[in-house]
Amino acid sequence: MYLMLQDRTTGNGYNGGKRDEDLVLPINSSLSVTLHQDQLKTTTTAAISKDFTEDRIWLNGREEDVGQPRLQACLREIRRLARKRRSTGDEDPPPLSLSYKVHIASVNNFPTAAGLASSAAGYACLAYALARVYGVDSDLSEVARRGSGSACRSLYGGFVEWQMGERADGKDSVARQVAPESHWPELRVLILVVSAERKLMGSTAGMQTSVETSPLLRFRAEAVVPGRMVEMTHCVRERDFQGFGRLTMKDSNQFHATCLDTFPPISYLSDISRRIVRLVHCFNAHHGQTKVAYTFDAGPNAVVFTLDDTVPEFVAAVRHCFPPESNGDKFLKGLPVRPASLSDELRAALDVDPTPGGVKYIIATQVGPGPQTLDDPHAHLLGPDGLPKPAA
Amino acid sequence: MYLMLQDRTTGNGYNGGKRDEDLVLPINSSLSVTLHQDQLKTTTTAAISKDFTEDRIWLNGREEDVGQPRLQACLREIRRLARKRRSTGDEDPPPLSLSYKVHIASVNNFPTAAGLASSAAGYACLAYALARVYGVDSDLSEVARRGSGSACRSLYGGFVEWQMGERADGKDSVARQVAPESHWPELRVLILVVSAERKLMGSTAGMQTSVETSPLLRFRAEAVVPGRMVEMTHCVRERDFQGFGRLTMKDSNQFHATCLDTFPPISYLSDISRRIVRLVHCFNAHHGQTKVAYTFDAGPNAVVFTLDDTVPEFVAAVRHCFPPESNGDKFLKGLPVRPASLSDELRAALDVDPTPGGVKYIIATQVGPGPQTLDDPHAHLLGPDGLPKPAA
Repeated sequence: MYLMLQDRTTGNGYNGGKRDEDLVLPINSSLSVTLHQDQLKTTTTAAISKDFTEDRIWLNGREEDVGQPRLQACLREIRRLARKRRSTGDEDPPPLSLSYKVHIASVNNFPTAAGLASSAAGYACLAYALARVYGVDSDLSEVARRGSGSACRSLYGGFVEWQMGERADGKDSVARQVAPESHWPELRVLILVVSAERKLMGSTAGMQTSVETSPLLRFRAEAVVPGRMVEMTHCVRERDFQGFGRLTMKDSNQFHATCLDTFPPISYLSDISRRIVRLVHCFNAHHGQTKVAYTFDAGPNAVVFTLDDTVPEFVAAVRHCFPPESNGDKFLKGLPVRPASLSDELRAALDVDPTPGGVKYIIATQVGPGPQTLDDPHAHLLGPDGLPKPAA
Repeated sequence: MYLMLQDRTTGNGYNGGKRDEDLVLPINSSLSVTLHQDQLKTTTTAAISKDFTEDRIWLNGREEDVGQPRLQACLREIRRLARKRRSTGDEDPPPLSLSYKVHIASVNNFPTAAGLASSAAGYACLAYALARVYGVDSDLSEVARRGSGSACRSLYGGFVEWQMGERADGKDSVARQVAPESHWPELRVLILVVSAERKLMGSTAGMQTSVETSPLLRFRAEAVVPGRMVEMTHCVRERDFQGFGRLTMKDSNQFHATCLDTFPPISYLSDISRRIVRLVHCFNAHHGQTKVAYTFDAGPNAVVFTLDDTVPEFVAAVRHCFPPESNGDKFLKGLPVRPASLSDELRAALDVDPTPGGVKYIIATQVGPGPQTLDDPHAHLLGPDGLPKPAA
């Protein structure tokens, strides 16, 4: 009766406004990589039982309002798919009643508030868990999408495209894997978590406002992104880091440009984000090629792509520009990185005033697989009573 | 033999990349207001004499390299116009020889480094002074433009448009007054000078890079600005502050969006700039209408437009969000502003964490006239020997 799974993802630049707020349809296609669960994961347990009297959800150990619209949309959609499957009668009916209430528990092993796309990972994981519980094996894009648009990409590992689709009902707005997680083994991802701060411009109305008020966003969606999707897919398939990196940076910049063109404007980047941008361009200029590339999602944290042989030197450059304040030993999390020192030439090329503590820590990770089922009952988050297990 | 004049201007949002770097032609038309010289001015003295052995220039009392290309382009252009005037023979030849060397001295009464468009004011003032010295009375747009593109707008007072023109030689890329300085007497301008900091992204290559690398900038120039020029001119003529303010903010945001879309990206706004943006939107939301409007030029300082009856309350709001650190008495410069207190409702609506010292000071000013000739010899910057007078 219990199902568990893990998943983690983050968008890599090709984000866009949504074209329909209820159906959560994007105004352009997008591409992302799914990050590895060894470093960043969401674990979710879902259970249904005739003994449950109401739907309930616990996030990171705390019960939350199950009535929030996006969560309700996910539950509605998965139950609709389950009914449909049963009514077509091409397989045995699922063993459990669709009228049973569901209990859901979900935890992240990374700070939810750090702006690391936890909602994408969370809803993908939820959709996957609910599908197991309700015996649904059709495409889950729509279930995940109803929760958080970019969550549909997190249903797959590796390099994933979210095709915007053309239909008004959104049935063709689905995620597809472009290349599996084993495709580019040298690729590394460094997440630079910067000092958390309140957002300086509101983002409540968010992307819907952008679609309505930004002439640049419409132009970008129609005239720029289609060509870039073709180019980016080509770069991924060819493992062309130069092309991949440059296009990732350009597209991140353009996405944030359209946020600024929204009225009132939305700004996710902070001064620290901009120092990271400058650091990356100085680093690449010193080497005469694109060796590292940044992308920023809806927050000030940088996601930096690079190849494994560049990681030690770039991490040393980050330490130089953002000297760790008190946590020198905890500055680097995730994959091990061997120490490296900066050459005098590179140090001189990093035309950035050091900002102590500007980057709180780095998570080193890589491309990873999609959602996984956890068979070990000890990993389940709900106990036999259907309530969260007490923290050990 | 000495000429003096004063001028000060700032672009108000309609800035754009230049379409030809040598001729300094813009890729779209633009509109600005000229600020009042009582608060912000450049004073320039130019002199020519048969006794001078070389061209020389002093800026704020310090001799600078007279060989810099833009200054040389101004001198070449004014001498060309002077020769042309003489050769047409329709008036008496100017009394002084064109072969005479020129001495120039120029001072600003505001910090040059504060990013307050000092080069626009400076080159407009220089063009005007040189025209007097060389007896040129034709359109000076081209002379000023060669020095600094936006300087051509500063040759006029009030509301000034810089028509981009269509000719390859730039002869029709000229400034024209849209409305005189007396047109909208209630309009006020508050310059919020923020903590100076090194630019976080380079702007050396600047606008030329934008034209080459930003798809959004090209789209903006071709598809967005022409309609906005019509709309903005209409708002100015009708003294429609709501329309004027909203369009000014939108256009400032869009200009900075295209800077971010440049590769490598250019970012002029700092976290303090963004807090000011948020403050303005909170202030307007509280009042249910656009009572203040921001615009940002190529730097983090905000230029805020408002009407005279709103100035006291908005200044109090700025003091609340950016408590002066040590210069409480020097926080407000320029036009006098009567003290005002914030209502509890407005204070609550200002959803901004106070940032002590974030705004260094405010300069309160208004729309002003174009370049003026100073007749009082005491105001001249060069002495009878053609050298800068010692500071009193």
